[in-house]
Amino acid sequence: MSSVGATPAATATTGTGIGDGVASATRITPGNALRPEDIAEQVAARSVVVTQDVASYTLRLGDDSLILAQQLGWWISRAPELEEDVALGNIALDLLGHARSFLTYAGGAWGKTEDELAFFRGETEFRSAHLVEQPNGDFARTIARQLVASTFQHLLYGGLVDSSDTALAAISAKALKEVDYHQDHSYQWTLRLAKGTDESRRRMLNGLQLTWPYVAELFDDDDLIERLEGIAVRPSSLRAEFDRTIAAVLLEAELAVPDVPRALGGGRAGRHSEYLGHILAEMQVLAREHPGATW
Amino acid sequence: MSSVGATPAATATTGTGIGDGVASATRITPGNALRPEDIAEQVAARSVVVTQDVASYTLRLGDDSLILAQQLGWWISRAPELEEDVALGNIALDLLGHARSFLTYAGGAWGKTEDELAFFRGETEFRSAHLVEQPNGDFARTIARQLVASTFQHLLYGGLVDSSDTALAAISAKALKEVDYHQDHSYQWTLRLAKGTDESRRRMLNGLQLTWPYVAELFDDDDLIERLEGIAVRPSSLRAEFDRTIAAVLLEAELAVPDVPRALGGGRAGRHSEYLGHILAEMQVLAREHPGATW
Repeated sequence: MSSVGATPAATATTGTGIGDGVASATRITPGNALRPEDIAEQVAARSVVVTQDVASYTLRLGDDSLILAQQLGWWISRAPELEEDVALGNIALDLLGHARSFLTYAGGAWGKTEDELAFFRGETEFRSAHLVEQPNGDFARTIARQLVASTFQHLLYGGLVDSSDTALAAISAKALKEVDYHQDHSYQWTLRLAKGTDESRRRMLNGLQLTWPYVAELFDDDDLIERLEGIAVRPSSLRAEFDRTIAAVLLEAELAVPDVPRALGGGRAGRHSEYLGHILAEMQVLAREHPGATW
Repeated sequence: MSSVGATPAATATTGTGIGDGVASATRITPGNALRPEDIAEQVAARSVVVTQDVASYTLRLGDDSLILAQQLGWWISRAPELEEDVALGNIALDLLGHARSFLTYAGGAWGKTEDELAFFRGETEFRSAHLVEQPNGDFARTIARQLVASTFQHLLYGGLVDSSDTALAAISAKALKEVDYHQDHSYQWTLRLAKGTDESRRRMLNGLQLTWPYVAELFDDDDLIERLEGIAVRPSSLRAEFDRTIAAVLLEAELAVPDVPRALGGGRAGRHSEYLGHILAEMQVLAREHPGATW
């Protein structure tokens, strides 16, 4: 969202006129070297080779964004202000854009499209962290989840722009600009809720308490990360900066950093809470009703 | 979304950094003369005076867009393709942007904000047409509704750019560019579904049949329209061009224009179907739970 054509859809708006036949209007998208369609083309032309490990890692990035996008989309008709409806909607669409790019790239290793990966995988095949499958709850809880997710993603993509995998670096560079706005948005709301009414402060505190058990999992290293030296960013290496950033925001909000035990995690290995099943059911129903249909 | 900064949110992406205090990130929006915030300022400064009649008319425009936006937002996690998730989400956000501008302008006559008008009116106070409250149904039915709504809005805003009410003309000029894309999108999908599989064609036909009873109401004139000569566009004056445009699309799609009796209508006078109540319940719950809360 931070520049012209920053999201796939933002570039899809050039009028194409009737007569383009059966192509979707949204497919006719000029001049953006990082569209999922371009990634797919490069992979298909074998000018980019995606290893299993890179694909597995990229799937984690894509699934985090995809699930978070689904969750935020819920707010589009339900935020406390029309302005906020628009803001959360835009963040959701940004994340969906990132997910499309990551999933398209990951799919290159397995001959699968973004849609096949999004709509035809079961719960245990998803590699998202538990953070993003946590319920929206009230508005403050959603903001707390955004505070954590956007701060993490900002650090992560900031590291991945130096990845030796140039496709991963390029997708991350583009996503970084948008996540910069998401982070700012969540900071502003954290402050606004914390310094608003007694009730909004109570809710913000509660949101942070409920969210914090899911912070630690984001920074876990594992074997896959070890094998991708120079390509992936080591999550544990981001923790100190994450803590400093969050501490500064919460200090300004006059809130303490929650002191709660970590949840079990396991998302990166396909172990999820019951929440993910419900999210996927909603997300996948139409595509699964008509598998292979030419929409 | 057809140009830089075309939606309020698209311009809200300039990073503002921590330290802007309790302001929402989305409020800090540079350089767009047609943001709802600017309209509100002009009205508050009395540099723009909104008459009761102009406000009542503008409310119709805003309510059509608002309700349609709510309905399309539902698709964000449920479209048959990720790409389409993004496209429908963007259309929903465009419409929400139009609604915000129209409602802000209308509210000037009554000392009400966009949020007060969106979240604290009852069903009988809404002035939207019955078309936009019709259920999403399956994807094809949503596309049929979009075909009608975007074709109508394109003609309407195309006329309103010449309104003697300069605010109305300016909001419409901005909306027109985005509706141009919405119209193209719905045409492409109508063709794609009609010429796709037997099943997608059957669904498109069914969607058109279910939608067509709600076409006629859009073109009804009434006393308010008579009193706004030169300011409003006479709906009946748009019907012939609407019919020509639709006939051309459906001819290309090898579909007949449905021949079904018109529904009763009454939306412009506040008489709605039971569907609107459910839509409003979802839309208004959070704002009403905490009236006046400083979010």
